[in-house]
Amino acid sequence: MQLYELNWPRVDELSRDIPIVIPIAALEQHGHHMPLFTDSLLLGEVVRRASAKLEHDTLFTPLMWFGNSEHHLDFPGTMTASPRAYLDLLKEMIENFLFHGFRRYVLFNGHGGNIVPSQQALFELRQEFRDSDDLLLLAATYWDMATPHADEFEQAQMGHACEWETSMMLALRPDLVGDYKNAPTVPFGSPFKPGYRGWVMKDRSVPGHVGIPSAATKEKGERLFSLFAEGTVQWLKRVVAWDGQSWDG
Amino acid sequence: MQLYELNWPRVDELSRDIPIVIPIAALEQHGHHMPLFTDSLLLGEVVRRASAKLEHDTLFTPLMWFGNSEHHLDFPGTMTASPRAYLDLLKEMIENFLFHGFRRYVLFNGHGGNIVPSQQALFELRQEFRDSDDLLLLAATYWDMATPHADEFEQAQMGHACEWETSMMLALRPDLVGDYKNAPTVPFGSPFKPGYRGWVMKDRSVPGHVGIPSAATKEKGERLFSLFAEGTVQWLKRVVAWDGQSWDG
Amino acid sequence: MQLYELNWPRVDELSRDIPIVIPIAALEQHGHHMPLFTDSLLLGEVVRRASAKLEHDTLFTPLMWFGNSEHHLDFPGTMTASPRAYLDLLKEMIENFLFHGFRRYVLFNGHGGNIVPSQQALFELRQEFRDSDDLLLLAATYWDMATPHADEFEQAQMGHACEWETSMMLALRPDLVGDYKNAPTVPFGSPFKPGYRGWVMKDRSVPGHVGIPSAATKEKGERLFSLFAEGTVQWLKRVVAWDGQSWDG
Amino acid sequence: MQLYELNWPRVDELSRDIPIVIPIAALEQHGHHMPLFTDSLLLGEVVRRASAKLEHDTLFTPLMWFGNSEHHLDFPGTMTASPRAYLDLLKEMIENFLFHGFRRYVLFNGHGGNIVPSQQALFELRQEFRDSDDLLLLAATYWDMATPHADEFEQAQMGHACEWETSMMLALRPDLVGDYKNAPTVPFGSPFKPGYRGWVMKDRSVPGHVGIPSAATKEKGERLFSLFAEGTVQWLKRVVAWDGQSWDG
Amino acid sequence: MQLYELNWPRVDELSRDIPIVIPIAALEQHGHHMPLFTDSLLLGEVVRRASAKLEHDTLFTPLMWFGNSEHHLDFPGTMTASPRAYLDLLKEMIENFLFHGFRRYVLFNGHGGNIVPSQQALFELRQEFRDSDDLLLLAATYWDMATPHADEFEQAQMGHACEWETSMMLALRPDLVGDYKNAPTVPFGSPFKPGYRGWVMKDRSVPGHVGIPSAATKEKGERLFSLFAEGTVQWLKRVVAWDGQSWDG
Amino acid sequence: MQLYELNWPRVDELSRDIPIVIPIAALEQHGHHMPLFTDSLLLGEVVRRASAKLEHDTLFTPLMWFGNSEHHLDFPGTMTASPRAYLDLLKEMIENFLFHGFRRYVLFNGHGGNIVPSQQALFELRQEFRDSDDLLLLAATYWDMATPHADEFEQAQMGHACEWETSMMLALRPDLVGDYKNAPTVPFGSPFKPGYRGWVMKDRSVPGHVGIPSAATKEKGERLFSLFAEGTVQWLKRVVAWDGQSWDG
Repeated sequence: MQLYELNWPRVDELSRDIPIVIPIAALEQHGHHMPLFTDSLLLGEVVRRASAKLEHDTLFTPLMWFGNSEHHLDFPGTMTASPRAYLDLLKEMIENFLFHGFRRYVLFNGHGGNIVPSQQALFELRQEFRDSDDLLLLAATYWDMATPHADEFEQAQMGHACEWETSMMLALRPDLVGDYKNAPTVPFGSPFKPGYRGWVMKDRSVPGHVGIPSAATKEKGERLFSLFAEGTVQWLKRVVAWDGQSWDG
Repeated sequence: MQLYELNWPRVDELSRDIPIVIPIAALEQHGHHMPLFTDSLLLGEVVRRASAKLEHDTLFTPLMWFGNSEHHLDFPGTMTASPRAYLDLLKEMIENFLFHGFRRYVLFNGHGGNIVPSQQALFELRQEFRDSDDLLLLAATYWDMATPHADEFEQAQMGHACEWETSMMLALRPDLVGDYKNAPTVPFGSPFKPGYRGWVMKDRSVPGHVGIPSAATKEKGERLFSLFAEGTVQWLKRVVAWDGQSWDG
Repeated sequence: MQLYELNWPRVDELSRDIPIVIPIAALEQHGHHMPLFTDSLLLGEVVRRASAKLEHDTLFTPLMWFGNSEHHLDFPGTMTASPRAYLDLLKEMIENFLFHGFRRYVLFNGHGGNIVPSQQALFELRQEFRDSDDLLLLAATYWDMATPHADEFEQAQMGHACEWETSMMLALRPDLVGDYKNAPTVPFGSPFKPGYRGWVMKDRSVPGHVGIPSAATKEKGERLFSLFAEGTVQWLKRVVAWDGQSWDG
Repeated sequence: MQLYELNWPRVDELSRDIPIVIPIAALEQHGHHMPLFTDSLLLGEVVRRASAKLEHDTLFTPLMWFGNSEHHLDFPGTMTASPRAYLDLLKEMIENFLFHGFRRYVLFNGHGGNIVPSQQALFELRQEFRDSDDLLLLAATYWDMATPHADEFEQAQMGHACEWETSMMLALRPDLVGDYKNAPTVPFGSPFKPGYRGWVMKDRSVPGHVGIPSAATKEKGERLFSLFAEGTVQWLKRVVAWDGQSWDG
Repeated sequence: MQLYELNWPRVDELSRDIPIVIPIAALEQHGHHMPLFTDSLLLGEVVRRASAKLEHDTLFTPLMWFGNSEHHLDFPGTMTASPRAYLDLLKEMIENFLFHGFRRYVLFNGHGGNIVPSQQALFELRQEFRDSDDLLLLAATYWDMATPHADEFEQAQMGHACEWETSMMLALRPDLVGDYKNAPTVPFGSPFKPGYRGWVMKDRSVPGHVGIPSAATKEKGERLFSLFAEGTVQWLKRVVAWDGQSWDG
Repeated sequence: MQLYELNWPRVDELSRDIPIVIPIAALEQHGHHMPLFTDSLLLGEVVRRASAKLEHDTLFTPLMWFGNSEHHLDFPGTMTASPRAYLDLLKEMIENFLFHGFRRYVLFNGHGGNIVPSQQALFELRQEFRDSDDLLLLAATYWDMATPHADEFEQAQMGHACEWETSMMLALRPDLVGDYKNAPTVPFGSPFKPGYRGWVMKDRSVPGHVGIPSAATKEKGERLFSLFAEGTVQWLKRVVAWDGQSWDG
């Protein structure tokens, strides 16, 4: 079900156990060959496919395209919340429904920079509503919903404006893809693993992408959309089916 | 020009004098007969029509549908930033471009509750960048861009899910319009004029709308879209044509 | 009734329906010919005249001279709250009485820069106390309380250290008025109407005033004080007479 | 010199070494027999007397009557900033002049509840401007400017609506003093000395005063005003005479 | 090198490339059988062992025992920063040294609840100092520094007051360990994997621990200390050896 | 009783009237001859001695070594909270126990820069919990717990890395004391007494200490520890013995 087309009396009739799925992505630089709206377009497509396969037991809000992208700010066109404002933005979107007693929430994410903030935000919110023992506050990222087979792709993980993202954009909006075939490979690197390193994109990549854009194909893109959408459907069904009590899904 | 489909090197080539237009609306209750996304859908259509008539000398960002709607929060489905977070949201969307030296900004608005905050936010931003004497920070609301003829409409001003908005929705997405013909008239009232009164919607309207929905027609809607889009084009041309110095446009 | 001279048991005896009027003005530059305290002195005189004509059914707090004047900060002597601190200041002055159950409030204003913040502050406060359905939160500016006849004045609206303000100061404290007769006319301009433009004063006026100071006379000043004080009395009587329920006054 | 009556070009001509004295007081309950504005009226009188004896080498701003009085909030009529907002208020009044290069500041205080916040605020401000080595940020309270002779008064220290304050009000505005002769003595108590105890007034006093109001006389009040005003003059002369370098005054 | 025993001239002589290691842990409930200070004691021991093996090319600050433990707050004795205050605390400890030009930092962690906040804090800090391209901001957790052999332990991961932590406490301070042999096994559960779930401890465990305390032995504890300390030494040597430029360590 | 070694069920059994003593100190420069951890080491020793003489009717938390030392920040090695974060830190440590109903708190301090903030923080907290009339929020500094005889010491008051502190460090950790015998005397100065002056350390002292380090002896140190520990014991016994109602201790 899409929130945007409902009216308020219809929302008021909904079960307070319906999962409310808030798609969150970004508008940020994606190198020389991919549009600023890449993360939002790709997540939008995954959500479109998944929601079509779900019954009317899941409520999708519009996609929030304003994300946590300050590490890309040196590249013009990037629009980003400041880090703390982003935490508040995530929390407030959920609080709007908490006010009316809804109990299950998913921040469904399409941008790497949103992962830590969405966990921090949900942690904070859980503490503030610590006595609601049937509250389910979840964050998930679409490319974690399925694992592509290693032999189908050159990359083993999601990058940025990379083989995976470029492939999906070729399947979705090829008119917005530039010269990916000559884009150089930018290695992933490891930030002092297993430690975490605070970073800005210009430290890691001059053109703005990370990974192997030149390996992209439309077919790979279709394959990824299919995998991720199906994984999303299965995972959301677990959220719908939750018994309201147990720790696990 | 639409920001969402550009890549960062293309943005970097733009003149720093290009006006950056940020459409801002809301997702909030619109009575029993209109969808939650009304303000965003209507503003989106005005912007779509206006941008089609403008040269490549104006840059439109995606529409920010998360607005200042806390006064509608008692009606479920409403999504809103808290008032201070909304001020920050508006400022940060502009600061992203100030970082790269752009000089002209328009918060282009489609929701009554955003008017005071957008003025407060621009005031604050102007002070923070007080030494940039070529900075143009503007806020405007689409229904102020033209004045419908008094004899064509029963209402003389914009309401909420009213004759005007219902008419436009009938022209744009009639499938999302419910039983407007039997919606009661809710008078506008005057909040101790010429004073301002702080309010919440439930004080003013039980069903959630203000005005005369039953007077709506698809034709009136088309007329309003046409008027507002044309007014918007003319006004934005003044922003493009500004000499960069004088106080007036 | 003047709060400053009461003791707390006397305040405790008051009806919780008595309007609490908080005069708010500024201490900011007013050009070469007018003192920094102009807004506070003029509002103080309007309040003095109005309160003398009202029964003991209205409570006036002392005037808050610290205002929202950051747009004048480039001119030394100006004292101003930062924009957010000003919002808090306004809210806290009201919250002091909300704590004791008072229900009617007027931010009675004498400075243009306070208009948007007072509306923003009251909006925020109304949301925070959203379940108090008999709460009346009003903001009004003294020069909106009456409309001077067009043929009596050269200006049709309030400016800054202008014909109107200079005239009133000539009537109130002529010893504080400098050479207004040779002050140049500074046009009002229109900030991309009907849009709003974020501004700092130095963009609009080198000397610091806006309007036609040279047209000022003591008689005009007396006329304005008389008009505004009488308009204030009539408007405040509506607040006193409010039935506690209806949307209108 | 009084800031309120100057215009901005006059302020601009002043030496940046002139001390800027900001009188700070309160509007808070003062028991059954004294008005809410006691602290502001008394400080105002001390400042009036002191400023009359100082040359044009000291600049006095208007008195800020909104203070740090949340510990009196249980008694209606009290108006108070919240504690953090009060810190900001103090800092911003100084920052307005720091913006223009002034170097010497005095928060001149007439309310016990302002003492700790004014020290906290100046500490914070000093850190923020840590590289200005000629910055003089001072806080002082008027009743510390002189020590009354022990045999002239029953109290050896300032209380609240007490012998000292009631005496001064009898000298200044006897019309605002109620039945002080029958006000009971409320002992000072010692908050686990030499420790500090966080407190609210209702813990210490039912009527709202602390000390011995019944010992007040107009003559004692005149004596106190005279002592404190003279002490203030001498202390401010040290501020004027400071060499701009040494740690001591 | 231990910061606590240095004086400031000695710190001033240090190379600005020396890694500054800030141990961060917690004081929070650890079930019925383990003391509140468990995380701080265990991390302290790992740091003690590791620092003894490192040359004078690493600087250790004192351990910050106040952590991000609000999810344990329902169990008395827990002391915790609020989530946002914890982010600031982490950032400020680093900013103290950034002020003096130091370039390499490690938040070295011994508490699961600190992991997301330390990443969020370093992300924020990196953006604020985005133009320092030789800035190394790292976060790491001691039990990620080595992977115990699966056949030596019943648990394959760190829990809470579990086999691993109880074993280490038996090796370090057996006098502080209560009846772990009869503590029930509390399963780890999976928070809707691969999604994240916002949580409070009382949802997951009634006694307060997670894992298999009864499997603890002093020998296992010694083994874990040895493994983690050695892993820490090796990892910190990579930080010392970093070339100051490359993305990887 | 030491909190660090308790488990949560033991804390839950405690009387809610037990005083919770939170030692607060600093890590900041102490001149050329004393270590950065001076304040924490000295306070820790006073607390160690005092707690050994108190029954199990007082609960001591671990010492918080992160203090309010921004005025020492120009000397490297100093670690400090920002002023506002420090207020929050103090409040949150107490709020952790307020959540569980404990009623008596002591911020027991060993650093001059913490005095004003601890009073500000307790004031704020008392207002927030204004209706808890049995709440005892105390702040005290160890060197105020006793007054050394004037003829035993050259200094009559505590300085910084001075006769008193150097003596105590000679008694506690002589290995951490450098060349104090040749440290110059730095006079105390008086910040425009009886006024307060906002300051940074570099204004007052080039080497970083204030007072007469060269007068230090180990014997004086032992004498001071003995005096302060005994004074602390007596004062804390008053807190334990408080009747829960009266203003005095």
